[in-house]
Amino acid sequence: MSDHVIMREIERADPSVIAGLGEAGVATVYEAQGQHGLLDHAIHPIQRGVRLAGSAVTVLSAPGDNLMVHAAVEMTRPGDILVIALTGPGIHGMVGDLLATSLMAHGCIGLVTESAVRDSAELLEMGFPVWTRAIHSAGTVKANPGSVNVPIICAGASIAPGDVVVADDDGVVVVPRDSAPEALEASQQRLVNETETRARLAAGELGVDFYGLRAKLGELGVEYRDR
Amino acid sequence: MSDHVIMREIERADPSVIAGLGEAGVATVYEAQGQHGLLDHAIHPIQRGVRLAGSAVTVLSAPGDNLMVHAAVEMTRPGDILVIALTGPGIHGMVGDLLATSLMAHGCIGLVTESAVRDSAELLEMGFPVWTRAIHSAGTVKANPGSVNVPIICAGASIAPGDVVVADDDGVVVVPRDSAPEALEASQQRLVNETETRARLAAGELGVDFYGLRAKLGELGVEYRDR
Amino acid sequence: MSDHVIMREIERADPSVIAGLGEAGVATVYEAQGQHGLLDHAIHPIQRGVRLAGSAVTVLSAPGDNLMVHAAVEMTRPGDILVIALTGPGIHGMVGDLLATSLMAHGCIGLVTESAVRDSAELLEMGFPVWTRAIHSAGTVKANPGSVNVPIICAGASIAPGDVVVADDDGVVVVPRDSAPEALEASQQRLVNETETRARLAAGELGVDFYGLRAKLGELGVEYRDR
Amino acid sequence: MSDHVIMREIERADPSVIAGLGEAGVATVYEAQGQHGLLDHAIHPIQRGVRLAGSAVTVLSAPGDNLMVHAAVEMTRPGDILVIALTGPGIHGMVGDLLATSLMAHGCIGLVTESAVRDSAELLEMGFPVWTRAIHSAGTVKANPGSVNVPIICAGASIAPGDVVVADDDGVVVVPRDSAPEALEASQQRLVNETETRARLAAGELGVDFYGLRAKLGELGVEYRDR
Amino acid sequence: MSDHVIMREIERADPSVIAGLGEAGVATVYEAQGQHGLLDHAIHPIQRGVRLAGSAVTVLSAPGDNLMVHAAVEMTRPGDILVIALTGPGIHGMVGDLLATSLMAHGCIGLVTESAVRDSAELLEMGFPVWTRAIHSAGTVKANPGSVNVPIICAGASIAPGDVVVADDDGVVVVPRDSAPEALEASQQRLVNETETRARLAAGELGVDFYGLRAKLGELGVEYRDR
Amino acid sequence: MSDHVIMREIERADPSVIAGLGEAGVATVYEAQGQHGLLDHAIHPIQRGVRLAGSAVTVLSAPGDNLMVHAAVEMTRPGDILVIALTGPGIHGMVGDLLATSLMAHGCIGLVTESAVRDSAELLEMGFPVWTRAIHSAGTVKANPGSVNVPIICAGASIAPGDVVVADDDGVVVVPRDSAPEALEASQQRLVNETETRARLAAGELGVDFYGLRAKLGELGVEYRDR
Repeated sequence: MSDHVIMREIERADPSVIAGLGEAGVATVYEAQGQHGLLDHAIHPIQRGVRLAGSAVTVLSAPGDNLMVHAAVEMTRPGDILVIALTGPGIHGMVGDLLATSLMAHGCIGLVTESAVRDSAELLEMGFPVWTRAIHSAGTVKANPGSVNVPIICAGASIAPGDVVVADDDGVVVVPRDSAPEALEASQQRLVNETETRARLAAGELGVDFYGLRAKLGELGVEYRDR
Repeated sequence: MSDHVIMREIERADPSVIAGLGEAGVATVYEAQGQHGLLDHAIHPIQRGVRLAGSAVTVLSAPGDNLMVHAAVEMTRPGDILVIALTGPGIHGMVGDLLATSLMAHGCIGLVTESAVRDSAELLEMGFPVWTRAIHSAGTVKANPGSVNVPIICAGASIAPGDVVVADDDGVVVVPRDSAPEALEASQQRLVNETETRARLAAGELGVDFYGLRAKLGELGVEYRDR
Repeated sequence: MSDHVIMREIERADPSVIAGLGEAGVATVYEAQGQHGLLDHAIHPIQRGVRLAGSAVTVLSAPGDNLMVHAAVEMTRPGDILVIALTGPGIHGMVGDLLATSLMAHGCIGLVTESAVRDSAELLEMGFPVWTRAIHSAGTVKANPGSVNVPIICAGASIAPGDVVVADDDGVVVVPRDSAPEALEASQQRLVNETETRARLAAGELGVDFYGLRAKLGELGVEYRDR
Repeated sequence: MSDHVIMREIERADPSVIAGLGEAGVATVYEAQGQHGLLDHAIHPIQRGVRLAGSAVTVLSAPGDNLMVHAAVEMTRPGDILVIALTGPGIHGMVGDLLATSLMAHGCIGLVTESAVRDSAELLEMGFPVWTRAIHSAGTVKANPGSVNVPIICAGASIAPGDVVVADDDGVVVVPRDSAPEALEASQQRLVNETETRARLAAGELGVDFYGLRAKLGELGVEYRDR
Repeated sequence: MSDHVIMREIERADPSVIAGLGEAGVATVYEAQGQHGLLDHAIHPIQRGVRLAGSAVTVLSAPGDNLMVHAAVEMTRPGDILVIALTGPGIHGMVGDLLATSLMAHGCIGLVTESAVRDSAELLEMGFPVWTRAIHSAGTVKANPGSVNVPIICAGASIAPGDVVVADDDGVVVVPRDSAPEALEASQQRLVNETETRARLAAGELGVDFYGLRAKLGELGVEYRDR
Repeated sequence: MSDHVIMREIERADPSVIAGLGEAGVATVYEAQGQHGLLDHAIHPIQRGVRLAGSAVTVLSAPGDNLMVHAAVEMTRPGDILVIALTGPGIHGMVGDLLATSLMAHGCIGLVTESAVRDSAELLEMGFPVWTRAIHSAGTVKANPGSVNVPIICAGASIAPGDVVVADDDGVVVVPRDSAPEALEASQQRLVNETETRARLAAGELGVDFYGLRAKLGELGVEYRDR
């Protein structure tokens, strides 16, 4: 039995749940699910102002080898986000405008990688959103085996195929498929609470009173002084 | 006597001096005050094209704990800039849109932190300028004591409460409150000189002649050769 | 004989070749010349959407010393790109708006440096494109000898005076002057091929079939599975 | 149901299997199990010349908080290795000589952490081996919940409680408990093969012949030339 | 009045206080004075097993310029530690075996620098202890003004001339001269307490009981489970 | 004509010159040849106390591929040092104890790489000295073409086959083959001068007098003050 597999079928979360998580955004979803699933802050968007969510099609690839990315295109469905993890360190242009064209043709709505992309100007123009460690043209080969749609660790987070990936200007967070509905509910509750809180803070109320933190400060021995 | 204090009152520099330093910008002020007070280049703006100056309200906080940031809001006055230093390394979302709303409600005009912020899209939309080491959602607690308005070291620079913080696309520089008028004067003199110099250079004059550097090159043994 | 020289005259590639390489862009040229000449990914543009090529005027300078940059201005001709390498590590504001004004007055069309620049807002406004390791105001002196128009290593790439520097949002690649026509031809061929490929991929054809990669996957022992 | 749990009992691999993996060492085991499970190279030993294996007792902790490390001591059994992962970035002295004394008293044979340790001279003297990102005294609190003996991601590797941790001067690799016997067998086979290979290479035979690589070089278009 | 000064005379702490702090070591002193004064963990010893304390003779220098280090030698007295901070980033061989010879001849007992040293083998052989960011030979000049015995920020810590520098395998911590006696007392109390604690932990008592942490775990909602 | 070549024959410097440079060591040779040729400080020895020099046999390899290292063994002669550069970023175990055994069998006396090595304990035991960016086991393939004995850039330094590589605890410096005799002479002169200087400094003379730096300090406006 091979260690290297391409799984054709994966299960995905409910589209309306995915959409709802996309609207909530990274910071809210991350908090709502109990501060789990955040990718390293080195993974940043190449564009500004995009917030989305999709189902993870996962790629596990040797550094500097994009053979498995080519193999993964066929497995993407409309609404999917491709997530590329490496078996070791390496910063190469794993995806450029040609692969992005192919991914978009199959409905893939975005890319997350702990390696790098190239043709960044073209990717922006095409409107294909990318979260990446770097922009770099360093060349790739198609020489090493890898896998598609297996569980991966990408930039410090554990991601299974079909998990919900939420990405925006703050970075990327992953929600396990099974707990996505629960995460959505908690996110929406959070958003409701935040609206209320925001209004009070905008009116000048102090969080230190509002959240009852003065007592905490006292307990911790923090002293207020005039001079 | 507690090590952890919140000082209610601080002295600030003259508003017109602060405004003048803000107009001069980071590079000019840094040079004008003798190449002091620059924060590490890792501290960068999340927005483009903002240049401002304000009085530092300082926060010293445990990594990943924003309790003291909440406590600091009350101490900000219109025109202040919140500066958050940590007692150790750590990159967390110390400030998001709620805290920024609260800070803006009290007139605070910007934030500098050696940690990170989150809700970056919202912060941009709100027009709340931020200079930070990173954008990251990693969660915070409210569990550890710290201080507000004590002298801090932030990103390699020493900052006292009430010092003038100047920030723009080049980064952040701090001007000690006492020497702010002197720094402004030197900055303005520099700007006058630069206007003159810029005109001569734009007309094609060579700095190597203009600044008398050919002699220096000769002294240092640098040879001009045709081939 | 001095180790420190300023070469007045350098040979440059044919202007039409340079222009063609500029149109092809970094990723294409890098691939077309056999995956050589790429600068480290830490060297990034401060602007967005600029793609250009020019002849390298090289500077070898002590860290934190911009004396040789001043000396280099005189040697730039219209269409040149200034490339600044250091003799050791250091991140300083080697070029600001005054030096950029001077460079533009002599026709220099851009700057590449493994150190840093300052006055970044002004550089953007002036339309002077820069690829740099960092934006930082840290001050410079004019105290150490160096060279102009000698072969340098900049951010891991070997650059001779008169080599063609291509730079865009993806970073910077250098083409040896002698092989520039050959690199252009290969780049143009690549662009033609890519247009065709792009159309097929956009129509939904799979690269894994298109490039004959299924056989490769089989040879490498990668298995397709349904579940 | 709490997100934060301390699991009292875990299953461990067979002691003789663990011992065998420890003798094989990191590089061999990593290769033998198909190049999986390696921790980031930033995780390095503070001592030289120690090679061991043990069962992972896992800790998931807030950065800068060692409360859960204290809770984990009770769960360690002779032959265990404590592995500390963080919920976010942070470099603090999570373990010093007191905690190490306590761990040793319960039979724990080593520590792996993606944070830092302190009292490094004392740890060396005590003969308590440590693999860590850094040596740093930065202080910790006991204020945040976390978990013991849950699956964690530590320095980029996925580790479940009871997995076999192998560590030596090359770093750290983790072997899933279930596949430990298989990994041991493959490791031992590898060691046998290597002994043979080593003898032939020491006698001057060339790997390029030995492994049949000349043909590969030819296929890849690599040319041998005399001058 | 010059910005660049060499202060001939500084006040030092009581020699017995300095000696006591040296015996206590970095981690203990750092904790004892309330978790202040720790230098960044990038500053590490080039030797193993040295623990000492001394009075800081401070140097503020341009990156890559060791003129002020030469000037500082004259100001060192037996028992002093030279501490070199930079006005900007840079990693150069600021001190080699000749300067170390000179420093030892004047009684200086060690060196701390946020830049680098060279001749590291010779420094080890001479028994001159060094804490540094790196070992690197990159050359220095003697061209830029700086200061000796002024307050500096070194690797993130504020250090005044005459402050007590404590350094060992864990790194470097600085104790303000005025609070040195108090820090010593607190350190010694800590050492006494630790001896007691160590004995109990070595006997197998659990810190989680000993420090009363089980209640804390309960309050935080951490659950013990058998399976 | 192939881009990928293995050059069988290279010219080497005179053995006595190489030996002399090895005795002088990195810092001295680097200074003696005018502060050129130093590799980045990230390249450090895995052993302590080894100082040597040899002729460079160069390898240019894809990241994570050690095929060309196998090909290079055949080209090493007694006294050579293997230097491995990459065509892009990557940290993998390019050389382990088997390859080292093979290299030693052909007389190769050391290894320099901008990637990583593994089996570090075995390499130490075998007495095979290594200068590397990291110790890491991350696996390699034998799938990509590269070159042996072509000019390379390794860790920021330009190295041609047959150049003299000098390496010790301070790092690595390269001396162009042609200028090796001249570099040796300058190194030896430097050593003579240093012996004299060392004696005077050890006797307590001040470098600030000795080198005539007091005048320089005065010119630069540095003021001596008593308090």
